[in-house]
Amino acid sequence: MSESMILATTLEELRQARALLENPLGLVPTMGYLHRGHLSLVERARAECASVGVSIFVNPTQFGPKEDLTNYPRNLEGDLKLLEAAGVDLVWMPTPEIVYPPGFQTWVAVEGLTSPLEGAMRPGHFRGVTTVVAKLFNAFQPQKAYFGQKDAQQAAVIRRMTRDLDFPVDITICPTLREADGLAMSSRNTYLNPQERQAATVLFRALSAAKAAYDSGERDAESLRVLMRETIESEPFAKMQYVSCADYDTLEELQTVGDKALLSMAVTLGKTRLIDNFVIGD
Amino acid sequence: MSESMILATTLEELRQARALLENPLGLVPTMGYLHRGHLSLVERARAECASVGVSIFVNPTQFGPKEDLTNYPRNLEGDLKLLEAAGVDLVWMPTPEIVYPPGFQTWVAVEGLTSPLEGAMRPGHFRGVTTVVAKLFNAFQPQKAYFGQKDAQQAAVIRRMTRDLDFPVDITICPTLREADGLAMSSRNTYLNPQERQAATVLFRALSAAKAAYDSGERDAESLRVLMRETIESEPFAKMQYVSCADYDTLEELQTVGDKALLSMAVTLGKTRLIDNFVIGD
Repeated sequence: MSESMILATTLEELRQARALLENPLGLVPTMGYLHRGHLSLVERARAECASVGVSIFVNPTQFGPKEDLTNYPRNLEGDLKLLEAAGVDLVWMPTPEIVYPPGFQTWVAVEGLTSPLEGAMRPGHFRGVTTVVAKLFNAFQPQKAYFGQKDAQQAAVIRRMTRDLDFPVDITICPTLREADGLAMSSRNTYLNPQERQAATVLFRALSAAKAAYDSGERDAESLRVLMRETIESEPFAKMQYVSCADYDTLEELQTVGDKALLSMAVTLGKTRLIDNFVIGD
Repeated sequence: MSESMILATTLEELRQARALLENPLGLVPTMGYLHRGHLSLVERARAECASVGVSIFVNPTQFGPKEDLTNYPRNLEGDLKLLEAAGVDLVWMPTPEIVYPPGFQTWVAVEGLTSPLEGAMRPGHFRGVTTVVAKLFNAFQPQKAYFGQKDAQQAAVIRRMTRDLDFPVDITICPTLREADGLAMSSRNTYLNPQERQAATVLFRALSAAKAAYDSGERDAESLRVLMRETIESEPFAKMQYVSCADYDTLEELQTVGDKALLSMAVTLGKTRLIDNFVIGD
């Protein structure tokens, strides 16, 4: 751990600072506007690694043309205070032009895993995610990297990419952190007005209902999906985009729930789109 | 330099052996059936790096369904003798199942640069090349990597990928080695029967004619293309696939030749497809 946190903007600054940090380095990639969920990843990295690096970059290539790139919340000063207090060694805050200079034309894409769920609703999203994460791995050269279970499909896709491309990086997926009423922590929660904020617990309620049914012996996947759908439909301010009860590894929809499954959903509240998930049967 | 050359098959064997080698490591990726062109890359790496690694892998994903994957020439025993004599430290000879295990679904693709020339004739070829080279970079963790100018578009694509994805690897492109009569060295030359072998000098003759015209002041790109085309058409055993006079960086066809251009072509002789190129004006 170094005495004070190093801030890098260019890739050269990052590489120079990183070369002085001890291995293993743990990387926590973020889009900033940090909440306790992000900090739990940083704490895990701090506990497990000699050095901790964090990137703050709102990655334009993972946003669709009609998505919230320009409005995505930012609070760089606050983020840096939190990271310094958490004992982070190195923060990279590149500009979009540094990450995607003129002439940029190389993409990393995972195929099958990115087809359903978020991939179906957000074409190109995961290609943006895997490309930027590959770049972060090459830029930071971490031995370990930390991601949240909140983005369950992203976690599966990044694990797959890391294995398929032989990146020498251990991927750790950390549990979702929740507010007292069950709402999963997300930078996008800041978009919610008070009414929407209250209604937003519907994701947790729907997942909890399906999990309770599973725990009581229900193994028919469609019954669990119907239960989640009905819970969401009972909330007047919420609109369902999808509900899923899928194989944990392939993310294909199940007929019957076996050993381990992913319950997941996307719901809009007004203009805000939220996702959440539970893993059952593990 | 280690006492004797280490042979690795699995990724784990490679990583263990590599961890013991000094930096900088120079990597020479090959498909085997080595000729003096390959050895010139190894010699360059040997001169510039503390350690030298070589991969021998006939990469199935860079061959089209109607291409010569199954017939591609192989001589592993001979290759290893040449590499040992050249002072190589570590050779990786993975099986296709090691490089592409079941469930593999991640691809690295360069966009614009791969559209013309070889990319137009061989759909998917460069996606296979960039994917396997990204994997080799992650597996070997080299500081430097060496490729031949003979595959000019491949060299441009790999440089682009390395820069775009921030791989911390210096790419060195080494000059094409030629037989006494000008034929560029290639593992595929072994396919040629004596008649085709003689006719195969047409690539060098066509490139030389265009270069002579350029050196005499010709700056009209189409005139250079016509000259190459006519030379190829004058050889009864040769059939032109394409001739090109393109911008050195973008590979777009030129109208007027400025500072630096790539003359390139693909020609078939019987069932054998050969490529060659000259850089002019540098």
